This record gives sequence, C-alpha cells and structure tokens, in this order.
Amino acid sequence: MSVLADRETPLIRNCWYVLALASEADRTLRSRKVAGQAVVFYRRLDGNVAVLRDRCPHRSFPLSKGILDGDRLICNYHGLTFAPDGRCIAKPTDPTNAAPLSAGTYPVVERDAVIWIWPGDPALADEALIPAVPWLAQDGWDLVSGYLRFPANYVALHENLMDLSHFAFLHAGNIGTPAYAAAPFRVKVEDGRINLRRVLENAPLPSLLSVPTELGDKPVTRETDTWWMSPGLNLTHSNVHDPDPAPGRPGTYAFKVIHFITPETQNSTHNFWAVARDFRLGDPAIPEHTQASFKVAFQEDLEALDWIETLQGEEGLEFGEIHLGSDRGGLLMRREMKRRAWREAAPAGSGPAVRSDVVGQARRLDDHPSEEAA
Amino acid sequence: MSVLADRETPLIRNCWYVLALASEADRTLRSRKVAGQAVVFYRRLDGNVAVLRDRCPHRSFPLSKGILDGDRLICNYHGLTFAPDGRCIAKPTDPTNAAPLSAGTYPVVERDAVIWIWPGDPALADEALIPAVPWLAQDGWDLVSGYLRFPANYVALHENLMDLSHFAFLHAGNIGTPAYAAAPFRVKVEDGRINLRRVLENAPLPSLLSVPTELGDKPVTRETDTWWMSPGLNLTHSNVHDPDPAPGRPGTYAFKVIHFITPETQNSTHNFWAVARDFRLGDPAIPEHTQASFKVAFQEDLEALDWIETLQGEEGLEFGEIHLGSDRGGLLMRREMKRRAWREAAPAGSGPAVRSDVVGQARRLDDHPSEEAA
Amino acid sequence: MSVLADRETPLIRNCWYVLALASEADRTLRSRKVAGQAVVFYRRLDGNVAVLRDRCPHRSFPLSKGILDGDRLICNYHGLTFAPDGRCIAKPTDPTNAAPLSAGTYPVVERDAVIWIWPGDPALADEALIPAVPWLAQDGWDLVSGYLRFPANYVALHENLMDLSHFAFLHAGNIGTPAYAAAPFRVKVEDGRINLRRVLENAPLPSLLSVPTELGDKPVTRETDTWWMSPGLNLTHSNVHDPDPAPGRPGTYAFKVIHFITPETQNSTHNFWAVARDFRLGDPAIPEHTQASFKVAFQEDLEALDWIETLQGEEGLEFGEIHLGSDRGGLLMRREMKRRAWREAAPAGSGPAVRSDVVGQARRLDDHPSEEAA
Ligand code: FES
Ligand code: FES
Ligand code: FES
Repeated sequence: MSVLADRETPLIRNCWYVLALASEADRTLRSRKVAGQAVVFYRRLDGNVAVLRDRCPHRSFPLSKGILDGDRLICNYHGLTFAPDGRCIAKPTDPTNAAPLSAGTYPVVERDAVIWIWPGDPALADEALIPAVPWLAQDGWDLVSGYLRFPANYVALHENLMDLSHFAFLHAGNIGTPAYAAAPFRVKVEDGRINLRRVLENAPLPSLLSVPTELGDKPVTRETDTWWMSPGLNLTHSNVHDPDPAPGRPGTYAFKVIHFITPETQNSTHNFWAVARDFRLGDPAIPEHTQASFKVAFQEDLEALDWIETLQGEEGLEFGEIHLGSDRGGLLMRREMKRRAWREAAPAGSGPAVRSDVVGQARRLDDHPSEEAA
Repeated sequence: MSVLADRETPLIRNCWYVLALASEADRTLRSRKVAGQAVVFYRRLDGNVAVLRDRCPHRSFPLSKGILDGDRLICNYHGLTFAPDGRCIAKPTDPTNAAPLSAGTYPVVERDAVIWIWPGDPALADEALIPAVPWLAQDGWDLVSGYLRFPANYVALHENLMDLSHFAFLHAGNIGTPAYAAAPFRVKVEDGRINLRRVLENAPLPSLLSVPTELGDKPVTRETDTWWMSPGLNLTHSNVHDPDPAPGRPGTYAFKVIHFITPETQNSTHNFWAVARDFRLGDPAIPEHTQASFKVAFQEDLEALDWIETLQGEEGLEFGEIHLGSDRGGLLMRREMKRRAWREAAPAGSGPAVRSDVVGQARRLDDHPSEEAA
Repeated sequence: MSVLADRETPLIRNCWYVLALASEADRTLRSRKVAGQAVVFYRRLDGNVAVLRDRCPHRSFPLSKGILDGDRLICNYHGLTFAPDGRCIAKPTDPTNAAPLSAGTYPVVERDAVIWIWPGDPALADEALIPAVPWLAQDGWDLVSGYLRFPANYVALHENLMDLSHFAFLHAGNIGTPAYAAAPFRVKVEDGRINLRRVLENAPLPSLLSVPTELGDKPVTRETDTWWMSPGLNLTHSNVHDPDPAPGRPGTYAFKVIHFITPETQNSTHNFWAVARDFRLGDPAIPEHTQASFKVAFQEDLEALDWIETLQGEEGLEFGEIHLGSDRGGLLMRREMKRRAWREAAPAGSGPAVRSDVVGQARRLDDHPSEEAA
C-alpha cells in the first residue's frame, strides 16, 4: 500500500474546510456536500450561520427542501422542527413524544469573509487550527475571486497547486514561461505544513502578472512562496520585485493566491479561489483582466484533472505513476494527507507506522537530491 | 439486520401485482418490467391477455421487438416462434429440432379493469388471493385515474401511503390540514393486512375534498380507513359525513383511493392510481378538478421519494432513521414485507424467526403507547 | 463455469486487432481504446505509424492532449517528451534526471490499408499471425466500407457474424430470404479457425446482391464461406454463380465481406467493415447502393446487440440461453475464444483442461447431428 494519498484514500474529515463564502449565507436554505455528506446552511435572524446535516433523522427527507421559520427549520415531510443547533423542538405528528432528537450539526466559524466547517469529530474542532486569510476582507487589498467544481479527487487538485512546474506547459499562454519550469525551488516542512519556494531572477513576467503590474517585458525578480496549509487550503504569496522602479511606481507588487479546497465527494471537489493584490486598488481595469486570465488558467487545470481522473477511473491505479524531482512538494503533501487519513481511520494506537523519511525512499525520488536546494 | 423492509430488501415476487390497465393491452407488443424482470404483453385474438418473459430463451433478444402474427409471437433475431402460453412452436433455423422449449410465461388474471400478474413461483399463484377492487368498473361509481413511475423503492411508497400524518406538511396546499397531522388513529393487523383508521370530527375539509363535495368550510366528520392489502395494493376508504345535509344533498360522500403498486426494479416503482366516488356521477366538472388536485399531491410524493431515495443511495442506510408514533402503520407494514421477503429467500424451514411483537420493541416506538387508541 | 466465451469473459489481448484504417493515421494525435486501454497514434515524418499508450507515466495525463513536435510527443502537463518508440527523451521540469522511462508502446504493423496492433504480450507478437486481407488495396477489386461502434461485447458480434440464419429475420428487408434461414450448412475447424459454408442453389438473390449483380429474380447458386479467422477478424467469401449468363456477363460474381472486430471495452466494440467486389469496377452507381444497403443491415445488427447487451446486463446471464443447431459455428467460435482467454489468464501449466469435443456435449446441441452435413 502506497504511503501517498491518492483518489482512493478516504477523505480527511478532521479538518476545517470552507463551506461557503460568507456572502452566500442568507435566508435561503442552501445545500452543499462536504466530504460526502450533504449539509444545509442559512443565516439566523441574529446574523450567525446555522449548518445542519441535510437529512432529516426521521425518513431522510432533505431539510433544505423544508421551510425556514424564523430560526427554526421545519422538515416538509412530517413537520419535525429543528433549532439552528440541530435539536428537534417539535414533533407535530407525535406531539407527546418527548424523546431527545437531533438533526446533527457541525462546528462552524465565520471568519475572513468565509464560513469554515469541521465535518469530522467535533471534539477535535479547535478554532485555533483555522488558518488566517486576512487579505479577503482587509484594507489595503483588493481581490477577484471565483468558484470551480472539479470533477476530480481533492488530492489531485492539491498536487496540481504544489507543482508550479506545470505552468510552462499547461498554462503556456498565460502563467507559464519556459524559464519557470526548470527554475530551482526549495521545499520545507514546518509543523505539518509544506512550503515550496521558488525565486526566478531577472526574467520577464508572464502576461497574467505583467499586465496588472504594467511591467511589460521588463526583467524582474519573481518570488513564489506556496504553502500547503491543510487539506482545505493552499496559499501562495507571490511577490514581484522591480529592481529599478519607474518614478511613482512601487518596488514590490504583492499577490496572494488563495485556494480553499473542500472535498465534495471522493471524486469531486469544491474550489473557492481568490487572488488579492496590494496595488492599483479600486482600479476597475484590473478585475476584469485578472479574473479572465485566472479563469482561463484554472479552466485548463480543471480540464486536465478531469481527463486524468477519468483515465485513472477507467484504467485503475495499478499502472504505477512515476515521480519527478519537481514533485517533491506534492509528494510531501500526499504523504502528509495519507498519514492524516490513516490516523482518522485507525482505532487509537493502531495503524501502520509511517516513517518521516519515507518519501525520500519513494521510487526514483532520491535520484534528484539537488532539487532540495534553491 | 433490521426486521423492517427497506430499499435493500429483495423484492417480493410471490404476490399478485398489477401489470397494466386492461385498456393498455391490445394488438401492440408492450414491454414492462416487474420485479426486475421484463415481460411482454398483448391481447390475443380471443380477447385474452398473453404475457411472456420479454427475453428470447435463445440469445436474449427482446420478444417485444418481434412480430405478432395472429396469436403467435415471432422473435425477430432467428425466428423462434412462441404460442401465447410461452411454448416454442417453430424453430425455422433448425426445423428438425423437436426439443421442448418455452419463453416463460406468468399466471395472469384480468379482473376489475386491470391485469394482474404473479411474477413469483407459479405453484403459489392462488387467484383467491387477488384483492377485489370493484369500484374501478361498477355501476354507481365514477373515477379518475393515472399512472406515475416513482424513482424509488416500493417500500418507501407503501410507507408514504400508510402515513397520513405527512398530509399536513408535504401536501399543505391540497389534502392536508393542520388538525389532521395530530389526529389520533388506530392501527390493526388482520390476516396479514394492515389497517389504519383515523376519524376527524367537526372539522372543515381540505380543498381536494371540499370542492367535489361542495361542502366548502362546513365542519363535517371525515373517516379514513387505509388498508395495506398486499405488497401490490394500498386501498383507502374515505367517507365524509355531513351531520346536517342541505336539502337534496347526501349525508355521506364515499371516496375509494386505490394505489396499485408494482415494483419495477429495486429502485423504481409503477404506481397505477384511481380515485372513485359515489356522488355527482357523470358530472364533467369533477374529473378535471379531482385529477388535477391528486396529480399535484402525487407529484409532491414522487418528488419527496426521489430526493429521499437519492440521499439514501448516496449516503447509505447506516445513518439509522428514527421512528415516530405516527409511523406505527408503516412499521407494521415494513415488518410484514420483510417477513415475506425472508420467507421467499429462505430454503424451507430456515430463516430467522420473527416475533410478532418485535415492532413494539423497535427504537423509540414504545414511548408512545397512547397512539394505539383512536 | 461455461466453456463458452460470453460478455463476462476477460478480453483476449494476445491477438492482432485493427486499430485504425491506414487513412486515419496522420499528423493529428488520435486516441482510441483497445481492449480497455487507451492508445494514441500518429504518423511519423518518415511515414511510419507510432502508437503509444495514451497515458503519461508521470501523472496519467492523456498524451493525445499533448503536442506533436516533429516525431516527438510532448505531454502537456509537465512536458515529458517521448520518442515514437515510447522512450522518454526529455524531462524539462527535472532536467538532470537521467532515469530511463517509457510511455509504453505496442507492436504495430501497417498492411493492406489498415493498422494492426497487438495489445498483449509483445514477446508473442508474431507478424506471421496477421491474416491477409489483400482485397482492401488490390487491383481488380473495388470496395465500400464503414465503421460502427457496437455498444456490446465483441463475442456477441462475432456470434452474429457466424450465424447466417438470422438474415431471414433481422434482415428480412435486405440480405435475408426465407429459404436461406433453413439452408443446410457445414462447419469445420482448421488450425483454430472456424469455417461455416452454406450453398444455396437455384434460388433468387436478396436485393442487396441482386441489385449490384443486376441478376434480378433469376435463380442462381449462392455460395457463402465464412471464416472466423481470429478474435479480430471475420471474413466471408461470397460467390454468386449464374449457370446461364447473359451474353457479355460474367458467370461468377465474387464478394468479400470483411469485419475487423476490435474490443474497445468489455461492453463495446469497434467494427471496421468493408465489402469488396470483383465486377462493375469503378461503376459509380454501385457504392451508393451497396453502402446504403449494408448500412441498414449492420444498423439492424447494432440495434439488436444493443438490446441484448442491455437485457443481459440488467437481468444477468444466469438465465441460461439455449442453443440451436444453427449455432454450431458460433459455439465453436465461443469455445475457442474461451480457451484463448483462459490461456492468457492462467499461469503457465495451469487452467482447466478444455476438451475439444465439449461443444458436442453442450445443452441440446446433440439433438441435431444432421446439421453437421452440408
Ligand atoms: S422525514 Fe422529516 S419529519 Fe419525517
Ligand atoms: S434470439 Fe430469439 S430466435 Fe435467436
Ligand atoms: S503528467 Fe505528463 S509530464 Fe506530468
């Protein structure tokens, strides 16, 4: 059995995932699937968000097809009525029945303009584990954002994001430049998070960056710091340094590329994305160009992962994919995800021991120790 | 393992099911699936109905794509020719072959304007077991009728029909009234049939009944007697008593609500329905209103069962649905269906013993003994 | 377990199959599935055809979505570059990585205007096993041809072609005549190939043959020699003898009906077909009529096999189909295919012994020894 997570690895549930943008939660009942389980969410009268399992405990009617009455959710099949915390507070077809009953609810936190949900064991849902993404709703930053549903397992999307080497090929027309593919990078693991850092000096930017920065073909330094924060978040700090800025222009342009990744099912993934920047704030010309460019790039990723998922599904995984030196970030991530999935599946104290140096022994990876250094 | 039938319980085959309305059988070959098996039916020259398995015993060509030649059915692949009783009477590509061969046929009875079929062991097909539904073709009764294909297991539809408590919610706009949801009811088991009786006194009727009876908002007595007759039939006798009839108006209005339920596959169900009445016979204003009203209500049921079937299919049954006091009729029915399914599956003399009091021990049901009395 | 191959028998891989018409291979990357595995093919600059597995060994990206650069195929995800023989010749994201790597390739032979592929063990790919089909590209022969994708297992299509008895029914309007269904035939096995020979004397031709030969209703001798050559080819030599030719007309008209059969998946099949003739060469009136007639007949086959595959899939094979004397050719073929499938699946020296006389013992087949003689 591989030490690397793949499309067949059970979904990790003990994690904070983004359920929705804060702006999506209102007085309409909305259903969304997280890690294979449908949930219903709405905004309470006091402004807080309620999230319940979207399945009535009585006869599995979807509660999202029910009625929101004040803060209470009424099942439209037999009228069981639930408080926002999931407790059943009325049984109109069986009024004398006092047995306690709950629809099931989830730890939920609204922060930084998104709604986080913890689909796993509530006892482990520590709010301190929620990663900070302040740029979504902070002065000094502007953003464009979007949503894509990937018809692929979330591991494949995470690996795509941990691998900047594909830019030069899959995204040749917008993000990628030939020099970028082979640029050296450095990988480090820090507190279970994985960091990939690549600095490309004295090279022109791809159009996706050169247009908003108005730097054209000018050779600049591009510093890309990608963090796999958790199974639910990939965060990239991208800084462009202009060694010789024109008068009135900044020396540094900062971008934050944020990918909230939420497994929908074993083979589909929610991807809420946002790109924040600290320059040309409020400039109406930017959003349209940036949005359009990123959409093209992300659509290329989606198409690629769809093709791969289909092939892997039809022909199986026994094929045995090989690894390249440029996969080191992705492999560390997949090892970490496999370890977390095992930990969840295993009864306490059991489970295979995963040695922390095991990726170093994975097939063909040790051929390229030089990739370790920037 | 649960003592209650559910969507995973093998379909009961030893039962009379309605295959079709009598009016559907003509000189066209028609294919329909019953309990997972396709059959072909047509009307013979003498007026009787022939039903054969819709699969040629030679190379599985569907006989319904063949040719009806007089009373004989000719397979359109290699010409095997079958009599209406299934016997092969000609093998044109192998004319000297005298081996006996049959396409398979079924016990069939045409009665009360419908065609009954017994898809199980023919040795057990006792015509005396066919329930009488005289109102479909009897003087003194008029009816409206229709057909719906439910994308759900037949147990769910049976349970829906044994549970009048959902009227006030799912059908709030047409059949349901708030008082009805919590009205007391009585359940009784008689010869393996299950009866649910609910009497609501001194209350106005829902529009579906008040319009055809022209009783408007007048408080009347409504007596509803629902019988689960078999896996193939749910029959409701609904009587409205007007304690103080206007001059020239009847004191009692009788409705018969008939649901023929025929499992198509494990997860889809044929539902032939009819609503008969004994008043305003021949009045052209009635059919349209009644048909439209029932259609809306049955469509609401269909939609609900579709959502539930989908959820149960995607998320499984381990969820563990809880029961309410108002489910007693449905639970007795599901226990009886499970028992019949077990009896069919088991070799003679084996199988788990099902104690007749076991539903009384099901989760949370005993909390509500008061539901037993009317 | 049956000694006859059916829709559940593992696909035979050690066989030459037609991948494509030679005319399909050009400078475009084309993907096609053979025996469950996707391959990509293109024509090299030197005119030879290259075929690689259509799955990048790195992250399963379909190579057919990549870029053809001269003779090299570049994966569009991370740029791995492959020579036409499958060898990886560049790893742009990991340039110092010298580990050998291959995309996988296949024995391929272009001959007689088609491209043959051997999807099984390359060590067994003997070119001498490729059957000759010279009429596709030979002076003195003209042809019409086409392609159909059958939504059915290849065994069913092979059996359809080994069974001329269905012509009188399924193709009553074009190929079939009543006399043909019951005409005697002879079956023989020769070097693992199966031959079915039927001679019908002194009978008028079906329209599909009478129109191109311009023989109208004239009674002639029709000699049909069908060869199951391999799991990949069914070849029919059809000769029409006019005992009394009109002045200037030939005494014999020859047709070759060629069916290349290539399993796509367990339940779908590529069928490249061609009908060659040795008369009225270059006559523009022929192709249109012959093409149209054969298309109708093959479409009838496709529809029939689709219905049968669907029924068998939904209701299973436990049903137990019976055999007729006219099936002898098909049964010998199915026995041979099962034997080959077993041989592939079994480790050397193991596997059930299949006695060569076993079809003679199959159910009901021995009832018709008279069918053995012409
Ligand atoms: S299914 Fe929700 S109340 Fe019955
Ligand atoms: S399949 Fe019916 S006669 Fe052959
Ligand atoms: S998937 Fe082909 S190079 Fe990575």
